Parts: sequence; structure tokens; C-alpha cells
Amino acid sequence: MIKAGIIGATGYAGNEIVRLLLGHKEAEIVWFGSRSYIDKKYASVYQNFCKIVDAKCMDDNMEALAEEADVIFTATPQGLCASLVNEAILSKCKIVDLSADFRIKDVKTYEKWYGIEHKAPQFIKEAVYGLCEINREAVKGARLVANPGCYPTCSTLSLYPLLKEGLIEPSTIIIDAKSGTSGAGRGAKVDNLFCEVNENMKAYGVASHRHTPEIEEQLGYACGQEVLINFTPHLVPMNRGILVTAYASLNRETSYEEVRAVYDKYYGKETFVRVLDQDICPQTKWVEGSNYVDVNFKIDPRTHRIIVMGAMDNLVKGAAGQAVQNMNLMFNLAENEGLMQVPMYP
Amino acid sequence: MIKAGIIGATGYAGNEIVRLLLGHKEAEIVWFGSRSYIDKKYASVYQNFCKIVDAKCMDDNMEALAEEADVIFTATPQGLCASLVNEAILSKCKIVDLSADFRIKDVKTYEKWYGIEHKAPQFIKEAVYGLCEINREAVKGARLVANPGCYPTCSTLSLYPLLKEGLIEPSTIIIDAKSGTSGAGRGAKVDNLFCEVNENMKAYGVASHRHTPEIEEQLGYACGQEVLINFTPHLVPMNRGILVTAYASLNRETSYEEVRAVYDKYYGKETFVRVLDQDICPQTKWVEGSNYVDVNFKIDPRTHRIIVMGAMDNLVKGAAGQAVQNMNLMFNLAENEGLMQVPMYP
Amino acid sequence: MIKAGIIGATGYAGNEIVRLLLGHKEAEIVWFGSRSYIDKKYASVYQNFCKIVDAKCMDDNMEALAEEADVIFTATPQGLCASLVNEAILSKCKIVDLSADFRIKDVKTYEKWYGIEHKAPQFIKEAVYGLCEINREAVKGARLVANPGCYPTCSTLSLYPLLKEGLIEPSTIIIDAKSGTSGAGRGAKVDNLFCEVNENMKAYGVASHRHTPEIEEQLGYACGQEVLINFTPHLVPMNRGILVTAYASLNRETSYEEVRAVYDKYYGKETFVRVLDQDICPQTKWVEGSNYVDVNFKIDPRTHRIIVMGAMDNLVKGAAGQAVQNMNLMFNLAENEGLMQVPMYP
Amino acid sequence: MIKAGIIGATGYAGNEIVRLLLGHKEAEIVWFGSRSYIDKKYASVYQNFCKIVDAKCMDDNMEALAEEADVIFTATPQGLCASLVNEAILSKCKIVDLSADFRIKDVKTYEKWYGIEHKAPQFIKEAVYGLCEINREAVKGARLVANPGCYPTCSTLSLYPLLKEGLIEPSTIIIDAKSGTSGAGRGAKVDNLFCEVNENMKAYGVASHRHTPEIEEQLGYACGQEVLINFTPHLVPMNRGILVTAYASLNRETSYEEVRAVYDKYYGKETFVRVLDQDICPQTKWVEGSNYVDVNFKIDPRTHRIIVMGAMDNLVKGAAGQAVQNMNLMFNLAENEGLMQVPMYP
Repeated sequence: MIKAGIIGATGYAGNEIVRLLLGHKEAEIVWFGSRSYIDKKYASVYQNFCKIVDAKCMDDNMEALAEEADVIFTATPQGLCASLVNEAILSKCKIVDLSADFRIKDVKTYEKWYGIEHKAPQFIKEAVYGLCEINREAVKGARLVANPGCYPTCSTLSLYPLLKEGLIEPSTIIIDAKSGTSGAGRGAKVDNLFCEVNENMKAYGVASHRHTPEIEEQLGYACGQEVLINFTPHLVPMNRGILVTAYASLNRETSYEEVRAVYDKYYGKETFVRVLDQDICPQTKWVEGSNYVDVNFKIDPRTHRIIVMGAMDNLVKGAAGQAVQNMNLMFNLAENEGLMQVPMYP
Repeated sequence: MIKAGIIGATGYAGNEIVRLLLGHKEAEIVWFGSRSYIDKKYASVYQNFCKIVDAKCMDDNMEALAEEADVIFTATPQGLCASLVNEAILSKCKIVDLSADFRIKDVKTYEKWYGIEHKAPQFIKEAVYGLCEINREAVKGARLVANPGCYPTCSTLSLYPLLKEGLIEPSTIIIDAKSGTSGAGRGAKVDNLFCEVNENMKAYGVASHRHTPEIEEQLGYACGQEVLINFTPHLVPMNRGILVTAYASLNRETSYEEVRAVYDKYYGKETFVRVLDQDICPQTKWVEGSNYVDVNFKIDPRTHRIIVMGAMDNLVKGAAGQAVQNMNLMFNLAENEGLMQVPMYP
Repeated sequence: MIKAGIIGATGYAGNEIVRLLLGHKEAEIVWFGSRSYIDKKYASVYQNFCKIVDAKCMDDNMEALAEEADVIFTATPQGLCASLVNEAILSKCKIVDLSADFRIKDVKTYEKWYGIEHKAPQFIKEAVYGLCEINREAVKGARLVANPGCYPTCSTLSLYPLLKEGLIEPSTIIIDAKSGTSGAGRGAKVDNLFCEVNENMKAYGVASHRHTPEIEEQLGYACGQEVLINFTPHLVPMNRGILVTAYASLNRETSYEEVRAVYDKYYGKETFVRVLDQDICPQTKWVEGSNYVDVNFKIDPRTHRIIVMGAMDNLVKGAAGQAVQNMNLMFNLAENEGLMQVPMYP
Repeated sequence: MIKAGIIGATGYAGNEIVRLLLGHKEAEIVWFGSRSYIDKKYASVYQNFCKIVDAKCMDDNMEALAEEADVIFTATPQGLCASLVNEAILSKCKIVDLSADFRIKDVKTYEKWYGIEHKAPQFIKEAVYGLCEINREAVKGARLVANPGCYPTCSTLSLYPLLKEGLIEPSTIIIDAKSGTSGAGRGAKVDNLFCEVNENMKAYGVASHRHTPEIEEQLGYACGQEVLINFTPHLVPMNRGILVTAYASLNRETSYEEVRAVYDKYYGKETFVRVLDQDICPQTKWVEGSNYVDVNFKIDPRTHRIIVMGAMDNLVKGAAGQAVQNMNLMFNLAENEGLMQVPMYP
């Protein structure tokens, strides 16, 4: 039985890790870390766990936690994991970091976009970017996994086959993404109040969102060259779900069948990436509560562009689900253990 | 492995039975019945099942289905199950009927409130009202279970201990209930369009809703006398969730502790009924996607009334989850098999 | 041109007063008071007023404001108006207080339910409870109007004719109310975050909500005796709208026609109270953005109760609209000036 | 007093024309046309008009209507207006057609994208495309105005100054648009049920939406060359509001100030187009219920693209509001008469 500790267990992503691990046959939670709620019953913070979780919240003490846990999930703001991790900890247990601290290989890029100093640059090289479908083998051997951001997961998986096969021109990529509000976290901010979000829509972080360099780095690996993109996230009045609509110019004439074959080549055997039938557009509700990413594409012969769509649950495949998937790989478990929830509809 | 057939598999309740049975270790679905979508892939009607369910929809043929299935779920409009069932079918397989056809013992009451003639009154007496926490033993031996309505489930479980112990005066019961829109089904009606429901609220079926006699009958069993209530359902802009707020006059002075003890007496060992801590009001999201019913109460010393609240997911404990719970009882399986989904939040 | 000042202009009710006064032909706003946003452009706090309002926010200085304004609206938390008002101010300008400070005539009841000391009890007697349809003449002569609470407005208007005519037994009144989330204000609280409210429902303040004594006092005036009620508010995932469902036992046999005549007697000539046609249940969206209250009722011959329903926009008739209606009365303007917005649908 | 008739008065756009004309000082509605509800009270179809509109619905008889009305609004499906209009009618009254029948100058393009034969091609040339801010003078003299589509209105106004001034390369334009659900109309379709739309998001009509050629034609006029774009609409769980996010490559280095000056040049004196302050992203709620379009832009120096955003209420500026604005121009009234509703927030 793998012993798991969660630092940041009372955020939405932490709460979702708890939900998933409760249904995991090979793991148990030994530490519900939450600096804000120390000694409070976890189920009193999230009443959905009433009569299911009896534990109390504990401090975010990674040193102590490393003594008790086989794996630590850090579902905390940027900078915290980097400020706590050290060799002693990593020699005792594995870490899946849900923050951005170890996602970007170039520390200067990280520090520029995130506006903070990186406190543990010595671990950046070792850290594995935990996009399981693409870095599966590397994840298996990792001590420290950087769990990908929600937008980067959906964007990269949607575009990866096209870039890998050279079908699109990287400099033309535009990613227009839409997210439910749980991605904004549980902090008490006026902008995230029900009345401000409901019956409303907006773009935010235009030409400046911090997931941009992360996406660019991953797309760059796919096509073997530097990539600059436009990435625009939008806030939409729903709890869960990310929808990515990406645009790129085709490098040559192609057909539905050819592109479909490319997607099948990369995802045909993947459990969690579903390439939908022709002309079926992904909908976020079709993956709600599950670890699936649904993708599809449409070729526009008029403009010689391809439109690629991806939908997933930002709290599952975009955060907690992928974190558990990474844990499964790191501990040589079945990759889908604890992750076979059927999407809930409606 | 129990073979299950679903008649009405493309309604919201049918779709939810599919979701739950896919996670059930002892049952498999052999028949996705849907008259409207015969020969269409089930996963094309509900894309959430893409790459999960490969079957096609079949006709609503209960005779043929009885040859193949151990249990049939009828998730169909009132009257259909009663028009199809017969002794030959019941001798071959068990039936869990999610419609109202066999819930009400007095056929005249049924025919008056539902406005249709009952086509199989000979089975009404045999049918067991499948409110598992209350009729557990009877369900275990049943061939035909009448799966309770969503409002009656939540209302009855909320009030049952008080009536059973004689703490409240039955003639004073008023039930004000609120439901998400999935309870209205998947029929294409203007009243259920997004724009009509969103940012809107209304009562409906005031003093005339068909769940009224069902609730009255069950509450009557609890207190051993005829009960007449006011029951007012409301439509609320959300997908899932029923919230019941019930009012009744106390028969005598009592205390929080005494009433709490009464609830614990009846539900302390129940898996799916959670009596919340003092002063915590049930919220529908805390049970979303799960088979739990959360209940609590508040005594008002000023008016000598007690206010009782119950929250559940109308599609799970209010329909498909309870249907599976009934199946588990009927086949001597663990009652919670396939039903331990942790509520999804947010 | 009446000069109006608003203290608390950046709350939701304050913002709504601004919206309404901008369409008012006889009034102009001279002071946008907001302690939190002093010197910030009002339209930067509420971008809906971009290019419409050019003013900056000012301090909540009632003394200074009284020099400039003919009327002051206080859309502030309980206690503030009482702490600021004095005879000098009232001799210079009129006040419409949207807080509860002057709604309840018994200062002990106020202090008990609100848990604060009343700082200006000497004005309680003078203050007029501004439920225009009922206290119209008194409002006309008032210097200080206590603008009714949202729930009390909808509850009182719904039940008033029945009590006035002695048709119902006061001790049996139960009010089950549901409100959109704007009633909770614009404060940054976790409980009011989009993800906590959306797809969720709950009761709150059960048997303890502070609008209870206000409703009881007003209903008491209607029937000429002390009234104790049960009042349960619920939070519903929508921005605007209050729906009241009230229950009471009839004092005698009556008919639809008789009760309808009673409602018409009191509201037949009222602009803002619409008694709907038989069997049409009020819906909050039918009054959204307007000053209307829609009411209707249903007699249940089985239980000898009457179910009364009322729907209104909590920010308009339940706050800002009624405040403007009171201002119109106090200044001898047409009562409906600036208030003839047609409800917006959908 | 202008006499207005509405054909299709019971659709969402027709209903919104009614709302707006009720507040219009120079116009009155003489005909509520609705084939589906003939002889039914209009206010029984839309209860928001209870006690406000007393008329009954009438047949969609344009010949008869032309005798009574000065202006006819056709808020009907594609093809109807073209099938009814003739010279006799146009000689008696003006028409504002909210369908697509007269928006596209090339009849073949219309017939290809809409899949129907055009029944009155002889009026296409005469018809004026009623995008008031751009075609103001032509509208003033028109007998027949083609009221622009919702997406084209928001897209064209957002991009027009940039194209007119040659700042962007037309072939690089990508428009990613998001709409509330009222744009889908009031037809009873499963896809538009509350439970299907709520907590869900999807693209639709990818590379094939019928507003594409309309947008292309208008953008082409702006830059003086043929334009082919990618246009992707998305359905979002809200009632009202369109948000356009458009991308294009800049033709040369430019600055915020320069681009801002270009927007001010075209819109500085416009009442209904609001160019927001730097870095403020438009939000649909800031324009809800009003005729405003809020626009803004962001230059991305990394990719040499500009991101343009536009937000409006699809039922007002995107349909009924613009129709009334066109009527005002056609009858030499103040252009903003009846259209100065302040946006409603929240």
C-alpha cells in the first residue's frame, strides 16, 4: 500500500486528489496538509467527505511528511515546492508537484513569467514533465515529477501528433482556450464570486498568461524547433472543464483520413485520449469527473488551416487525475488504477 | 455475473444506470433498450461513453430481454412497465421499475393522480417499494421492485425517524422541495430549454404533484395513520440535486440531543444516509454523483416546529443509484457494490 | 432636479441604485460614496458604467453629503446609518436607509437579532417602513425611510391581503424562500465563490435569519396580532431573484374567486404588484431587472391550506427599486418615475 | 408615432424587440405576429409582459401588416422574409429583416451556405446592410435593411478600424467567438435543453458556420480585398452575451498608442461602441441588456500579432437593439432613442 501525503489538501486540486485516492486500491492517504486549517477535520472543510474521511488537517511540513509517506503531492502555489524540497526528502520519497516550479527547464524563463526567484534550480534538470502519454518511460524512473498545467495538458495533447509529424507550421499556432472557474482556485477574491462569473465571459492574461512558455516548450519538443504561440485563456461560467480550440496552417495538402491516421498512431492505444468520430466536436461535459481528454480536428480547405479541439476536466486530467496517473507510473502500478471513473452526464 | 437489461437506456436515469453498472463488479449490461435510437450506437447518444460502451441501442422488447437478462431496469414513462410485465417475464427475471407504476398500493389513487389506467394491477400487491433503508428485508425477496420517486426518497428518509418515534404531528407536515432540472427528463420541451431555466426559479405542480400520494403513503406507514401533506416542488437552475425542506409541529418539548439520538437510531449504521453535525445544513453538491442522502434538522423553540432538511443527487439515490442498491439486495450482493462513488466537489 | 447621494455605492444594491437613477428624469447622482474605493473612478469598479458615469468614488461622509444632496441612500451594512444620522442631517436632507437599522420598531428585538447596539434609537419611531404599497401615505411625509429587506418585501406583499382580510390563521404561516446570490453582497467570501454556489443549493439561517422579526412585525400589523412564523431562506445558483413560497391554514372554506377578489382589492390598482392568472406560478425571470412583484396562490382543499407564491428581483423591488420608489413618494414625484423597466427575458 | 409590426414576435429576438419598443417614445407596436400562437395573448407566451402588453398574437401576414404598419421587423427563420416581400409591400412600409436573407450580396454565396433558394434576389442589391456605425448614411435612405447577424456585428466592429487602416494582414484573421444560448433560439431541441448546455462547452459549425461569408464580406469592404477567415463559434452556458476573440498578424511595428488612436478615430464619437481602457478585457456582463459593444485589443510583440476582443449582448446590439437603431435611422429619429438602457450588473 503506497502511503501518500498531500500538501495543499484543501485547495480544489488537493480535494480532487483525495477523491481519486479514496477509490485507489494501492494507495492510502496518510497526511492531509493544509496550513490554513491545521487541526480542523478535513471533512468539515469539504463536507462531501463526511463519514468518509476522518482525518484532521496537518501542517505543510514536508520534512516530517517524507518520513511517513512514499509519495508527496504538492498542490500549492508556485514557489512552495521549490522552497521545501531537498535531497534528503527526495532520497526518502517521491514527489509529484502540481505547481509550475519544475515544469520549465529554463530557470530564467520561469523566473521571468512567474516573477519569483526559483529556490531549487538544482532539481529542475532531474524533474520529469509528467505528461504521461508523451513522457511515460521517463516518468517511470522519476523521483520528482512536474505535473503539467491544465491548459498545457489539453493544448499539448491536442496538437502533439500534428507537430510530431510535421503537418502544421509551428509559427502559425494560435490557441484559444476556455476554462471553468475551478481553475482559479478557492481563494476568496471578488473576481471569482458567483455573481461576477455567472452569466459572464471574458478573456484574461491576454498575451501574458504564464502557461504560455510551458506550452511553447512542450510544443517545441514535439517539432524540434523553438515555438512561439498566441495563447488566450477565457473564464466561462461553469465549475469544471477546459476546452481548447487551436488553429494552425497546414504545411501541405492533406485529408481527413491522413490526419486521422496520425492521431490514431499516437493515441490509438491510449486509454485516456479519445479521438472522436469525424465531425463530432468535443464537449467538456462528456469528460466531466474523468481522466479522459477528448480531441478532434477539422480541416478547412478554404484557408488551409486545421482547427484542433480538445476537452478535458481541468481538475482531473488537468491536475489531480494526471498526478495520480504519474504516481501509478512511478510505482509501477497499472497506469489507470483509480482513474477509470466514467464521465458523469448530465 | 448478473446480466442486466435497461429499457429506456437513453433517458437521464437510464444513462446513469449505465454509468453505475460500468463500475459494478458483479453486473454487466446486456441490453441498452431505447425505442427512439434503435440500432444507433449507444455512445453516439451519450458521448461520455465513447470508447467505453460499444453496444447499439435495441428495441424495448421485454419478452426478448427476459430471455437474456437476470434483471431488467425500466427507466421509462409511467404506464410502460405495467403494460409490458407479465407472469412469464417475472418468472424468468427480476424487475426494478423506476416509473411510478408499482409504487402506490391503492390502484385508484394511482389512476387518479396519474390519469391513466393501470394495466397490471395484479402485481401491485407483490411489488416491493424499494426504499432500501426502510424495506431492506422485503426487497431481498422481491421479484418486482418499485423504485421510489426522487422527491419521495428524499422526503421520506428525512422525516421517517421523527414519524416512527411519534415526535411530530403528521397533519402539520409541509414539504417544500427544490430540484435540479435533470428530474424533468431529456424530452425536448420549451420549458426545459437552457434559456428558460437558467437564472430562473419557479414552483410547479402546486398542490397537485404526483409524488404527493407516494410520499403520503410512505409517511403513513411510518406513523401508522393516514397522512395528508402539502408538497411543493420547485425547479432550480442546476443539473443534479434535490433539496427537501420539511416543516412539522413537534408533539412535545424535545432537545437537539434527543432528536439526534432518534436519527442515529435509524441511520447510525446506514452507509448511504449521513446525519450531519449540528447546525450544518445539507448542500446538494456535497452528495453530487453519489448515493448519499445528507439529512439534518433544526428545532425552532419559538414556533415549536422542527425543520428537517435532506439533500441528495436525484439521478443517483433518487433514481439509478437506488435502483442498483435494490438490485444488490435482490441478488444478495454487498448492498454498496458499485455505489461507493465519493461525491464530486466542486 | 433632485440631488441624490449614495453611501455604499459600490455594493450590488448601490450599483443598482446608480443604474436606476441614471434613467430617472428628476434625479441626478451627486455623490458616489465608497470607503473602499475613494478617488477611484466609479466606472472602473463597475465597468458597465464605462462612458456613462465619469465620477470618482468619495468617502462615506454623511455630514458633507447632507450639504450637497436632497436625499441620501445608505446601502451599507447594519449599524452604519444609525451611527451617522443625526438631527442636523435630517433637517437638511431626506434619507432612505437600505440597511435594517430603522425597520424594526422594538429596539430590543433589533439588538437581539442583529447582535449590535443601536446607535440612534431616537429616530426609530419617526422612521417610516418604506413598503410603498402598504405605507404609501406615511412615506410621502417622511424624512427617514427604512427601506424593507428583500425577503420581507416579497413575503409581506404575498401574504398581506390574506391576513388583512382574516382568511388565514397567522400562527400557521411558514415561509420558504429562495434567493439568488446577489443578496449575499459583493464581499470576498469563500462561501460565495462561483464554484461553491454553482450547481449547489442549501438552506441557511434556519430558524435564525434576521429577516424573521421584520417579517413578523409587518405581518402582525396586517392581522392586528402578534405573529410568529417559520422563515427559511435558501441560496440558489442564480444572480437575481427571490421566490417566496408561503403556507398557511385557511380560517374557513373559501374559493379561488373569493381569494382572487381579495388580492385584486389590494393590488388591482397597483403598478408594481401583478396578480397572475389562475394556475400560473410566478417565475423570477419574468420580473428580472424590473420593480414588479408577481404573486399568485393555490388553495389545497385536501389540507385546507393556501399556498402563496411571490417572485421579484431582489436588487430592484427588494432593494434599489423600492428605494427609488420611496424617493419618488417622498418628493411627490410620479411613483413609477424611473422604474418602468420592462423585465428582461431570457 | 411610428407603427411597428413584428413578424416572429414570439422568438427571443422578437420578444426583445417588444421590450425595447415599449420604452421607445416614438414607436408603438401594432402587430405581434406569431404563426405558432395565433389568437393567444402575447403576454401568456412571455409572462414578463403581464399587465404591460394586452395584445394577442396574429398571423404572419405581411400583406395585411403593410397596410397598418410603417415598419415591419421580420424576426423569422432564413427564407421567410424573402418569400414574403414584394414591391407593393416595400412601397407602403419599410422593412428591417433580422434574418440573413438580404445580408449577402452574392446570391450564390447565400444559397450555398444556407442551402435554400433565394426567393427575392431582385431586392438584394437595394437592401442596405444595417451595421449602423459603418453604413449609417445608407441606412437612412433605405426601404429594406438587412439587420446584421450577431457574430458578424461583434466581429466586424471589433476588427473594422484595423482593416480600414491597413494595420493587419487580412489573410491571417482568425475569429474565435463564444455565445450564450439565446442565440440558438427558442425551438424545442434536445441540444438546447438546460441539462445539455449547463456545465458544458463546445465548438460548433467549425469551418462551416453560416455567419462566415457574412463576416468575410464585411471585412472585405473594410480592407478593399477579398478576405477568407477562420471563424469558430462556441456555445457557452449563459443566456445572453457574445464574446469575440480575434487574432491577426500586424502589417508593421506599431504601438498601443497608435492602435488606440485608430480605434478612437472610428469610434470616439460613437455612442454604442466603447473602447475600453488599456489592458481591460471586455466582459459580456458589462453590456448585458444594453446596445453597447465593448472592444479592446492587445499587441503581442513576441508573435507580431494583435488580439482583438469584443463583447456585446447578442439579443440587443446583436439583434433587436440594432434593429431598433436601424429603424431610428430610417425614420430620422435620434439614433439612440429607446436604446439608452444601462447595462444590468450583476
